[in-house]
Amino acid sequence: MAWDTEGTRRRLKEAATAEFAEHGLAGTTMTRIAARAGINKERLYSYYGDKTALWEVVLADELDLLAAAVTLDPGDDIGEFVGLTYDFHAEHPALARLLQWEGLSRQPPVRAAERAEHYREKIAAITRAQEEGRLDPSLAPGHLLFTFIALAAWWHTVPQLAELVTGASSDDEAESRRRRAFVVDAARRLAAPR
Amino acid sequence: MAWDTEGTRRRLKEAATAEFAEHGLAGTTMTRIAARAGINKERLYSYYGDKTALWEVVLADELDLLAAAVTLDPGDDIGEFVGLTYDFHAEHPALARLLQWEGLSRQPPVRAAERAEHYREKIAAITRAQEEGRLDPSLAPGHLLFTFIALAAWWHTVPQLAELVTGASSDDEAESRRRRAFVVDAARRLAAPR
Repeated sequence: MAWDTEGTRRRLKEAATAEFAEHGLAGTTMTRIAARAGINKERLYSYYGDKTALWEVVLADELDLLAAAVTLDPGDDIGEFVGLTYDFHAEHPALARLLQWEGLSRQPPVRAAERAEHYREKIAAITRAQEEGRLDPSLAPGHLLFTFIALAAWWHTVPQLAELVTGASSDDEAESRRRRAFVVDAARRLAAPR
Repeated sequence: MAWDTEGTRRRLKEAATAEFAEHGLAGTTMTRIAARAGINKERLYSYYGDKTALWEVVLADELDLLAAAVTLDPGDDIGEFVGLTYDFHAEHPALARLLQWEGLSRQPPVRAAERAEHYREKIAAITRAQEEGRLDPSLAPGHLLFTFIALAAWWHTVPQLAELVTGASSDDEAESRRRRAFVVDAARRLAAPR
């Protein structure tokens, strides 16, 4: 019977995503990742290289999943773009944590050029929507995009603060629906032409 | 000559704030804090108790500084409230990092009852402003407060993302003024009565 290479790779990456989300790059060991996956460490190194290379794969893949799940075209409703970003974070709690670990580390961002290009495309879509009169043209499009991300991600970034302010747990489904509706509405209000 | 007790306490707390902001509660040691302050570790323990007690003092004191620096009364311009919160984070970069370490740790929040009460007061001020027709009464006031905090703090929470999106460094003073102006405007647009 052949080795189930793809399955092994996937299990290793799932374990790495969970460990990095929990402990960050500095706080995670290759030994723990291999143990979590139930696969020997030599295999982990041979598939993914060293810990930093694996960290980069994990963060880049989570960002790719977001980019695939939430697109933005000039004609799209901006509220729904932010709502879908909110949904992605709710379903992929690793991403907000990985981004925080990255920021806290003060290291240069992973795959900076590729990510900057991705944001330029989003900004171009916003600029087009501004030119077409669907979003307020007086708002700086890059700052607007960054703020849309804030609206969607902040709830998942500081859940303890969300609970202190709203009095409701992030696990409460009705509250999560209220939060989503709020950010969708907030994005539309913020960017609406005057 | 008498011991300079207040000066010693202050130096220890400054060192603790810097170390906790850099490494979080789990990543910081009392030995490093004492060494950074240039004061012996026994004094650190006798003044502040154990590491967790010191962490609580550091985070609570940073939040108290913010509460003292940025008040919110029903008649206040909400844009300026968010602008001043932005300013505080810019001048006190430790706070956004401490809040992230707290969230990432999954531990119960420090001084939860006191902080929740503080947010209830802010929410009461927002509710009053809504009743008086200065803010849109259809917006949930707790969700609105949480979003105001997001507008101000997000730039300081994920500075690497801010740089990737805007192409400008957080150290660039002209860019920092643009970001502040953007969040002030965003808060007003978001909450304006229709």
